[in-house]
Amino acid sequence: MKTRIGIMGYGNLGRGVEIAVNAAEDMELAAVFTRRAPDSVKILTPDVPVVSADEAEQWKNRIDVMILCGGSATDLPTQTPAYASMFNVIDSFDTHARIPEHFENVDKAAKESGKTAIISVGWDPGMFSLSRAYANAILPDGKDYTFWGKGVSQGHSDAIRRINGVKNAKQYTIPVEAAIEAVRAGKNPELTTRQKHIRECFVVLEDGADAQRVENEIRTMPNYFSDYDTTVHFISEEELKRDHSGMAHGGFVFRSGKTGVNGEHNHIIEYSLKLDSNPEFTTSVLTAYARAAKRMNDEGQYGCKTVLDVPPAYLSDKSGEELRAHLL
Amino acid sequence: MKTRIGIMGYGNLGRGVEIAVNAAEDMELAAVFTRRAPDSVKILTPDVPVVSADEAEQWKNRIDVMILCGGSATDLPTQTPAYASMFNVIDSFDTHARIPEHFENVDKAAKESGKTAIISVGWDPGMFSLSRAYANAILPDGKDYTFWGKGVSQGHSDAIRRINGVKNAKQYTIPVEAAIEAVRAGKNPELTTRQKHIRECFVVLEDGADAQRVENEIRTMPNYFSDYDTTVHFISEEELKRDHSGMAHGGFVFRSGKTGVNGEHNHIIEYSLKLDSNPEFTTSVLTAYARAAKRMNDEGQYGCKTVLDVPPAYLSDKSGEELRAHLL
Repeated sequence: MKTRIGIMGYGNLGRGVEIAVNAAEDMELAAVFTRRAPDSVKILTPDVPVVSADEAEQWKNRIDVMILCGGSATDLPTQTPAYASMFNVIDSFDTHARIPEHFENVDKAAKESGKTAIISVGWDPGMFSLSRAYANAILPDGKDYTFWGKGVSQGHSDAIRRINGVKNAKQYTIPVEAAIEAVRAGKNPELTTRQKHIRECFVVLEDGADAQRVENEIRTMPNYFSDYDTTVHFISEEELKRDHSGMAHGGFVFRSGKTGVNGEHNHIIEYSLKLDSNPEFTTSVLTAYARAAKRMNDEGQYGCKTVLDVPPAYLSDKSGEELRAHLL
Repeated sequence: MKTRIGIMGYGNLGRGVEIAVNAAEDMELAAVFTRRAPDSVKILTPDVPVVSADEAEQWKNRIDVMILCGGSATDLPTQTPAYASMFNVIDSFDTHARIPEHFENVDKAAKESGKTAIISVGWDPGMFSLSRAYANAILPDGKDYTFWGKGVSQGHSDAIRRINGVKNAKQYTIPVEAAIEAVRAGKNPELTTRQKHIRECFVVLEDGADAQRVENEIRTMPNYFSDYDTTVHFISEEELKRDHSGMAHGGFVFRSGKTGVNGEHNHIIEYSLKLDSNPEFTTSVLTAYARAAKRMNDEGQYGCKTVLDVPPAYLSDKSGEELRAHLL
């Protein structure tokens, strides 16, 4: 019997889950839930109902795993515990500093309901976390480096858009190639914020806005830009739409660590992602972990989990025999 | 209480485990077992007994995990099932084609004894297998590429040494940079054996041996060299010892996969290792998995496992809270 998936929220993430579920032979999409008027939401898959989020509870026995596609700022802190009291759930909660608190809330709800919740699934947190955890366990004497990009940072783009005189903006986070090369070469550099990433901004001005003032406000903005080398380009709205609508992203996780009687041997573990579509890759990860959530729940592993708690084989639709014969 | 580790076999791997166990705060080395005369084996750690392998059974209650440091060709196929009937065990069995059979033998022994065995631990199989398994589960529509090197292949070096007139030899497997770049660029190339790796040989001749004949025998050797571009250098025994005694190795695992309604987005997952010491990195992995074997056995998870069955958090000496707060 196929694993029946529900999608809560139908934006870029919801659409990505839909594509990934339809590509998986062992899953079927049961329903898409929305806070908008269901009639106004057109999905890709024929014959799958779009349902009001208010009616989700009525689907408790028709959905094996609900994949939550809301945002970390306001949606998931309340949604994930609420739905974990009805469903096995997956979320992509990515506010690193608040993960411990989110974990506790979800764990309580999921243990009470006998459900399995896997939180903070995606690539960072997610695949990058796995890379850090494995590498730290194997090379306890070492240093971690994470680089993000090239890709759009939504938070930095929003910060620019809040400046007076700015009509629209996209900000790319770009890792500094020389820093990556130094890490890859085993030099174990101490890197400042400025030495790790540069920030490139594409800005559409309101009519009559002062470009020099806007550029200065961007460059000197504390936390967001003042610690970085920042480039600002002024372009038209048409150019922004044409050249900067892509959702590519990626990044690099390194651990450089020593072994030997006197730490005489250095080892570099590198994990990197180059993604044409950030949301579609993220949802491919969410969908694989939905398979694991169902399996862990069937085994009685209730409560909140993260990617660090899930055996890798549980993400696969292949049997242990097949995995050992072909992938080990 | 610390996890008590036994080491079976004291060569490069045994010594590497010793170093890794001594670096781990939650482990202690209980004893080293050898088939040689125990008095003839000098280990690095003071006050740890070196014991005859024949007496291992007497240590059943003084060792939590026995790490087996024998070879895959002749030692492990018999050793791992035998010791799994007495101990939780870890091995680095790396004959990919025989893993299913080895798994069955070890699983039977470990289930009968109520022990936990984790086989084929290291980097390939091991960390590379993990990378393949995760990436295949996330990107089911894609292609895998594995490159090895630069590093010495023991099997190819042995094959050269068996040629008449050869006194000593080392063979390096080297990935073809252009092939790696094509994969990294998302070109999804179809690569022949020759396009993926080159083979570089350093050969010491016996006095009076015919260099031209030896070189020809190497280049045309079926399976080992005939499908590759092979370079042969003749050097002295002193040069071989001085310049080719290192144990560096490494490699790259890629998955290039598509998502989207029409497969319009490509994603590249890359995992790579650059290792100063192949045996010390391998044994760092073995030691981390010893921690997992103890924990799984404490939980009643008996039988044979592979890296694909072990939750990542089980490799760490840190608590779930610490991992979520700092590595997730």
